[in-house]
Amino acid sequence: MKTYLDCIPCFVRQALEAVRPLTTDVAVHERIVREVLRSAAEMDFAQSPPSMGQFIHRRLREITGVADPYRDKKISFNRMALEMLAENKARVEAASDPLGTAVRLAVAGNVIDLGVKGGLTESDAREAIERALSEPLHGDVNELRRALSSARRILYLTDNAGEIVFDRLLIEQLPLDRVTVAVRGRPIINDATLEDAVAAGLDSLVEVIDNGSDAPGTILSDCSEGFRERFRTSDLIIAKGQGNFETLYDDGNDVMFLFKAKCPVIAAHIDLPLGSHVMTRPPKAARDARCL
Amino acid sequence: MKTYLDCIPCFVRQALEAVRPLTTDVAVHERIVREVLRSAAEMDFAQSPPSMGQFIHRRLREITGVADPYRDKKISFNRMALEMLAENKARVEAASDPLGTAVRLAVAGNVIDLGVKGGLTESDAREAIERALSEPLHGDVNELRRALSSARRILYLTDNAGEIVFDRLLIEQLPLDRVTVAVRGRPIINDATLEDAVAAGLDSLVEVIDNGSDAPGTILSDCSEGFRERFRTSDLIIAKGQGNFETLYDDGNDVMFLFKAKCPVIAAHIDLPLGSHVMTRPPKAARDARCL
Repeated sequence: MKTYLDCIPCFVRQALEAVRPLTTDVAVHERIVREVLRSAAEMDFAQSPPSMGQFIHRRLREITGVADPYRDKKISFNRMALEMLAENKARVEAASDPLGTAVRLAVAGNVIDLGVKGGLTESDAREAIERALSEPLHGDVNELRRALSSARRILYLTDNAGEIVFDRLLIEQLPLDRVTVAVRGRPIINDATLEDAVAAGLDSLVEVIDNGSDAPGTILSDCSEGFRERFRTSDLIIAKGQGNFETLYDDGNDVMFLFKAKCPVIAAHIDLPLGSHVMTRPPKAARDARCL
Repeated sequence: MKTYLDCIPCFVRQALEAVRPLTTDVAVHERIVREVLRSAAEMDFAQSPPSMGQFIHRRLREITGVADPYRDKKISFNRMALEMLAENKARVEAASDPLGTAVRLAVAGNVIDLGVKGGLTESDAREAIERALSEPLHGDVNELRRALSSARRILYLTDNAGEIVFDRLLIEQLPLDRVTVAVRGRPIINDATLEDAVAAGLDSLVEVIDNGSDAPGTILSDCSEGFRERFRTSDLIIAKGQGNFETLYDDGNDVMFLFKAKCPVIAAHIDLPLGSHVMTRPPKAARDARCL
């Protein structure tokens, strides 16, 4: 997805929300805002919004010297999600359609997104997840069921820490010996890295790799060759979250996207109401034009 | 009031909201957004937000060649407010405190602000005004009453078209022979100019002058010498709207501000809830330091 002009106010807001908890030095706040403005002024808008997210958070880390600003929050959201794990596992096991329930739980977990809402607290997240569980899902779980029945190599692209524990519920419904889970290559916002996959217990279930990139999405040209090879050779790719959607949806990649549409620009892009819980795959025409 | 970093996303949003109705040419939308970003990146944040508003709307007029983009809306909001005039006059006349009721009506009229909400429709405005009439007023009308009893030269700085008809209700409660009404010098957003003062019938009631500037506020250094002289020699200045507040409040000017706080940054600046109806005068210390 290209960067819409409407994304730009949000870049500035996100930069401000991200820098304020890191330092009370207003000169630093001002510096990062000016850098974001200069960079956005010259940006190629054909790039996806996570390119700018990558720039903003790289500069934040460089300027403040904090290598992983969201570390504590990631640990805390993992712990919260792990506390909910037994109850959620029971929900899946008791369901008449365990795969469908696991998909819904995985999408509900996507509310844990500190890029969209920097001040999200644990109790906000718990509440939002509970509400999210009764949301309708825009999409057909049978499409995933059919794809799973024939897929030999399944690649699951995770999004955020905390959320990754919800992903585990869905991953447990997949044929584990055929699944690889991919996380981000380096810390970026609260996106999951290897540490979070370990915290969620995924490393003992399936193969876990990282994508070599610090973008809050999957910018293939920025990923490691190893990851790109895995991406090319997988016959079912499941991608969680808005960042993966923004970076992969419009480029003819055959990917099953699962996310909550928390951003009005993304919701408009797929013509669904803001807040929708979405399972979507690009139209067949786009898939046939797939060119990796 | 200085420009807060939180004002910056709003500059970009306002520029987008303003340019889209003027042209469907997305290259023009992109051009204006890039210019705003470049300008904001280098801006002196000690300047008030209306400085950037002035820049944005000047460039919009230059780039699109439309000299008065809000002309039709201004005419339409004047007409709407004139349709409500007889009913509102009756409200003032029937009130136990006509001055207090006229102040409340003048503040209610401040919802007609297309800088804050570009897409405001007539029916939105009518509804908002009706709701606004039952809002509490943060401020003491007796302070205005006392100031009026001794003031020899009263200067009333208007804000928007449409709203200026509501101002007429308040102006009619003032000693007319001592009142001068000032409007903006040139079209800027939907701010009132001489044409609107005439439409509101103010020119037959009081002296009307313009301030010589096209800023959406009162940047004294940008106003004509004639206006500045009037500003210096008035012993009561009443200023409507956020733009006048942003440009005059922190500089030690003794001004009675009347507005609805529609912006979270302004509301926080005066420590009142968003949406508050406000009558406020800078603290006495600031007034004593008045230096024109």
